[in-house]
Amino acid sequence: MTASSALQTFRAIDVIRKKRDGIELSQAEIEGLVNSYTAGEIPDYQVSAWLMAVVLKGMSRPETAALTDAMLHSGEVLDLSSLPLRKVDKHSTGGVGDKTSLVLAPLAAAAGVAVPMISGRGLGHTGGTLDKLEAIPGFNVNLSVAEFRRVLEVCGCAMIGQTAEIAPADRKLYALRDVTGTVESPYLICASIMSKKLAEGIDALVLDVKTGSGAFMKNEKDAAFLAQLMVETGERMGKQVIALITDMDQPLGNMIGNALEIVEVVDVLRSGGPADLRELCLEMAGWMQYLGGVAKTVSEGKQQSAQLISSGKALEKFRQMVELQGGDCRIVDDAKRLPQAPHTMQVTSSRAGWLNAMQCEQIGTACVILGGGRERKEDLVDPAVGIVLHKKVGDRIDAREPIATLYYKAEAKAARARQLIAASCEITDSAPSSKRPLIHRVIGKPAENN
Amino acid sequence: MTASSALQTFRAIDVIRKKRDGIELSQAEIEGLVNSYTAGEIPDYQVSAWLMAVVLKGMSRPETAALTDAMLHSGEVLDLSSLPLRKVDKHSTGGVGDKTSLVLAPLAAAAGVAVPMISGRGLGHTGGTLDKLEAIPGFNVNLSVAEFRRVLEVCGCAMIGQTAEIAPADRKLYALRDVTGTVESPYLICASIMSKKLAEGIDALVLDVKTGSGAFMKNEKDAAFLAQLMVETGERMGKQVIALITDMDQPLGNMIGNALEIVEVVDVLRSGGPADLRELCLEMAGWMQYLGGVAKTVSEGKQQSAQLISSGKALEKFRQMVELQGGDCRIVDDAKRLPQAPHTMQVTSSRAGWLNAMQCEQIGTACVILGGGRERKEDLVDPAVGIVLHKKVGDRIDAREPIATLYYKAEAKAARARQLIAASCEITDSAPSSKRPLIHRVIGKPAENN
Repeated sequence: MTASSALQTFRAIDVIRKKRDGIELSQAEIEGLVNSYTAGEIPDYQVSAWLMAVVLKGMSRPETAALTDAMLHSGEVLDLSSLPLRKVDKHSTGGVGDKTSLVLAPLAAAAGVAVPMISGRGLGHTGGTLDKLEAIPGFNVNLSVAEFRRVLEVCGCAMIGQTAEIAPADRKLYALRDVTGTVESPYLICASIMSKKLAEGIDALVLDVKTGSGAFMKNEKDAAFLAQLMVETGERMGKQVIALITDMDQPLGNMIGNALEIVEVVDVLRSGGPADLRELCLEMAGWMQYLGGVAKTVSEGKQQSAQLISSGKALEKFRQMVELQGGDCRIVDDAKRLPQAPHTMQVTSSRAGWLNAMQCEQIGTACVILGGGRERKEDLVDPAVGIVLHKKVGDRIDAREPIATLYYKAEAKAARARQLIAASCEITDSAPSSKRPLIHRVIGKPAENN
Repeated sequence: MTASSALQTFRAIDVIRKKRDGIELSQAEIEGLVNSYTAGEIPDYQVSAWLMAVVLKGMSRPETAALTDAMLHSGEVLDLSSLPLRKVDKHSTGGVGDKTSLVLAPLAAAAGVAVPMISGRGLGHTGGTLDKLEAIPGFNVNLSVAEFRRVLEVCGCAMIGQTAEIAPADRKLYALRDVTGTVESPYLICASIMSKKLAEGIDALVLDVKTGSGAFMKNEKDAAFLAQLMVETGERMGKQVIALITDMDQPLGNMIGNALEIVEVVDVLRSGGPADLRELCLEMAGWMQYLGGVAKTVSEGKQQSAQLISSGKALEKFRQMVELQGGDCRIVDDAKRLPQAPHTMQVTSSRAGWLNAMQCEQIGTACVILGGGRERKEDLVDPAVGIVLHKKVGDRIDAREPIATLYYKAEAKAARARQLIAASCEITDSAPSSKRPLIHRVIGKPAENN
């Protein structure tokens, strides 16, 4: 092949070799790869070799932005410009007991910010917003784009799953990454998250990047790197993006499991619920209001959020969204209308002391074992099962005092989950000397004085 | 999936992840990968991701040996133990004008060493032994294993192409590497070469690892690394292996092109031919005799080789092999019986001076452009076309003096080739200050005093 004919056509092999050799790819090369792959014109085996080269050689900021952009434009980008409100979404990189999305969408909507949220399912040991929503009898996460838009217009928030039209390149690439050991790259994670979120037609985005034993990014340095990458990529594409690095070294809140987490969401929206969950929701809501232009500062946004909770307006917004998406909104006042597990079992401490640490990923895995998540992609999730924690890190504990209660169906699974939770709790003779902060730091530019 | 069930089955994803993370793979893991892939049980896209991880993360010596062994045993390993002679082969990593195999097989056989040679075709800008052999009218490189063995028994040498039975894993892996940018790894190159060569049932192997502008390994460090790797891998598998790092910064000999190279082979076997080609053949033949146990030292092997040439015995062996493999052995005495190009064209120097350097890869590419090699895999090779060099590096040259003669069929191709050759020759006002040695160094243990 002569040089001139090579220039005329996109050659995957050239792009693979360049990335392998650490040479920066052009926007045209990245677009060529993504578009050809989405169109089925280049085979999986070339793309998986390229993905592995990206995992091991990394990407520059312009490359990451080009990849995000190409994936974003592989499908439909919602145009919500007819909606007069500013559109702000939030995204979490995933953790155990993280049900903040279900609090934040109605809370921000109650403040006058539109929240067009496209969410995912549980992955590995982490829970997923769609699985939690589906614990509400009748709740439909599979709205058409037209229905999604209608719910958003009426209520100010709507929560659905990824449709076939949104970022098809991401669906195809994600499936390939999953089976080729190429999930673990901040550049690919960034492009996957940001392409889907930017396809929602948002103006701003609040990212919650988890770090700790229950997060995908176990250490803060990796989490901060990913956060910085997503913030810069969003900004390059003209969006306001802020990232909070938050703690996932123990579960967030006390309840883990789909129906149980709905109960805790309602608790928070009723001015109750555990302190850590409440605090993170208010902080994130403050940022969403600030970026949504309905609060002058984040702290004003937090105060307004607290008022919207105490006045019951946020809960009413939640109730309205549930109803508009076909769910049984009576669950708000009667938690027994949510799926109920037939049995409970206590996990008790073998000794007295202080709960010094929890292996948070193990707690998430215990919930998966109970049936609350998927061991294989094709597994069905049981919405009723889960875990309620009675102790959090730093708490004093007596011998034989319950650490957690399991809600379960199958005895054998409960026994395995109990064993896993017991083993994941580190009980020491003295109280932990220091406490990890809930919010480690904030990454992003929007200047703001709390 | 539980840990216990994961242990029961080979999981490609685990092997990919380990290699990605730089963790050494076990022999069982490498065998599992090679065997599953050869059997069609794991998809190309997983193997290509693994190959890219190998390219970028490398392999340990035990991993390289395990990969070579698994590829070797993916097919038939010839058992030549019934042949009373020691079996010694040679292999070159490929260059321009490298026709040493065609001199060495009959030369070593004439000395009483058996040479069961399985060769390849031209690759990129380099020539291939099979293409050269097929320039001889009637020569059959596709012998069955039984025919191969018969020729070997009768004549002491036989030269064929890779059969379907030999190292099928290498055929499948090589095809995948070719389209996924994963050719360029010394570990994968080593396993590919050594698995095929060891499948020949040899006792010893002389490697010719090329370095310079016409080699795949442009610098000597990379060439020496690959040589060391192949020597160690062969030794781990119980074979005597020696590697010569030899110069490929200009073509070897004066003739490039399939039929032309047969002419030059016959010249050398008639005590003629260019000095560099003759020198390298004698050196390699000396090593083959030494490792084949028919010379006490390499230098004795060289002397005996020179005698076998001057006595005509080596040429007679060549004639016998050509005849046994169906070729027209009259070409030995009448070069006009080889395919002849209809036209010739001179490449002349635009100025007087010294030929300071040649871009050797460009010379090889010029031969490919004439039709002497393949631009695409499916291309047919024209045996008649080629290049005869009249000047080598260090030679004095006058203005308008011929540097080379092109043998061609198509005018337009010849014009392109001429341009390429002229551009690849660097003419300077003074003679080059130093001359690159033909043999850079010898790598391997067999202690020997020249």
